[in-house]
Amino acid sequence: METLKIIKIGGNIINDDTELHLFLKDFATLKSPKILVHGGGKLATKLAQQMQVEVKMVDGRRITDAETLDIITMVYAGKINKSIVAQLQAHQCNAIGFSGADGNTIVSQKRPVTTIDYGFAGDVKQVNTKPLELLLKNNLTPVFCAMTHDQNGQLLNTNADTIASELAISLSEIFNVELYYCFEKNGVLNDVNNDDSVIELITPDTIQQLIDDHIIFEGMLPKIKNCLHAVSNRVSKVCIGKSDMLFNKNNKHTTITR
Amino acid sequence: METLKIIKIGGNIINDDTELHLFLKDFATLKSPKILVHGGGKLATKLAQQMQVEVKMVDGRRITDAETLDIITMVYAGKINKSIVAQLQAHQCNAIGFSGADGNTIVSQKRPVTTIDYGFAGDVKQVNTKPLELLLKNNLTPVFCAMTHDQNGQLLNTNADTIASELAISLSEIFNVELYYCFEKNGVLNDVNNDDSVIELITPDTIQQLIDDHIIFEGMLPKIKNCLHAVSNRVSKVCIGKSDMLFNKNNKHTTITR
Repeated sequence: METLKIIKIGGNIINDDTELHLFLKDFATLKSPKILVHGGGKLATKLAQQMQVEVKMVDGRRITDAETLDIITMVYAGKINKSIVAQLQAHQCNAIGFSGADGNTIVSQKRPVTTIDYGFAGDVKQVNTKPLELLLKNNLTPVFCAMTHDQNGQLLNTNADTIASELAISLSEIFNVELYYCFEKNGVLNDVNNDDSVIELITPDTIQQLIDDHIIFEGMLPKIKNCLHAVSNRVSKVCIGKSDMLFNKNNKHTTITR
Repeated sequence: METLKIIKIGGNIINDDTELHLFLKDFATLKSPKILVHGGGKLATKLAQQMQVEVKMVDGRRITDAETLDIITMVYAGKINKSIVAQLQAHQCNAIGFSGADGNTIVSQKRPVTTIDYGFAGDVKQVNTKPLELLLKNNLTPVFCAMTHDQNGQLLNTNADTIASELAISLSEIFNVELYYCFEKNGVLNDVNNDDSVIELITPDTIQQLIDDHIIFEGMLPKIKNCLHAVSNRVSKVCIGKSDMLFNKNNKHTTITR
């Protein structure tokens, strides 16, 4: 099976034009089939302020009302996605931008209202790999923003980490998928203040101890659970660290395997 | 050769949610391979006002400075394009959104500065049909917004009528292309105040008389020249009229042929 790299980048790269430029230049050099998934960064919040739309957050999660969904669609699917695609084209990487509505690639359902109404937030229900397989086998590189749709005409805001892992799981039927989460640290750290204290390997057997010891906590907990979910569903490996891990094999990072 | 319909819609459909909804429902039923090209409508101007960005126009043409380009990218490639794609998916039309940067489909060059500096406006230089052929032959429907790129990382604002005609010309190598320009009138009118006075056929031989008689003038003139350019370059026919012409063969419209 051919190897497919699925790479997710977040705010630390997207918010910094120079970082993004350097990353995309390197990304374009990766030889194997690849998919890029990007989060939204701070631009949506900035635009909301400019438009005097209030940003509503509960427990660090954005509440997506209709106005916020419009902003997200403009910033994620418009400005950020097209800027990335145009830059990759300049580096001879034949990129093509995607939301989950494009090619009906990612279908989600609006998150049910419980104690919190998240608004137009979607939980992934189904990935249709056929259009992606077609493009990947023809040397095109899909670039996903963090949006999906419900097949009834509604766009939905969806977590970019989840989009990356769900794509990885579904495409594992066709490819040997490696999933990379790029963020601002070298990986999962034993000591949060020491970027050299990387835990190099996490497996389903070692994770519980790391949670009990409060080494994995807060925002890292759902991230790692996402990774374990991926490797339990045929994804060959998941790596977390700085984007350097993709281009320099000696760079420290955390690998999650079965 | 298989027939490909390339359909351009403008402000009269895009600015009205109900009109757009009805149009997309009909568009989805068209059986042959098809491409939709959409203009921007009033939304970009509205967003510019909300963001307190001044809209600069010269001779009815927008001057695309950096701030305006951002707004256009957000509105055309983001909000309008993704909204159309999501709605088409709801009608079982497997749409996929495009700017000219996506798949490197439409390369343009920044318009040279003469007496007027149009800013980030691009004139089409090259169409790469390969990714479009791949999608069309796999029952996917490209939906283009009016943006292109220069292959050096720069997005450019490009006239939607031109995008439609350039796509039509290039794809005529592979398909029997019919090009449809939908607008608010029944076609080119003998009497601008009488929507029944449609000129049913225009050819290179009849156009000069129509210009001399001031029947074709102002905004219609570049539109018709665009159409003649298309039919002189292998496009089988160009039709101008209300979108009904696509769904009701008896509907009056203007046809431009060689």
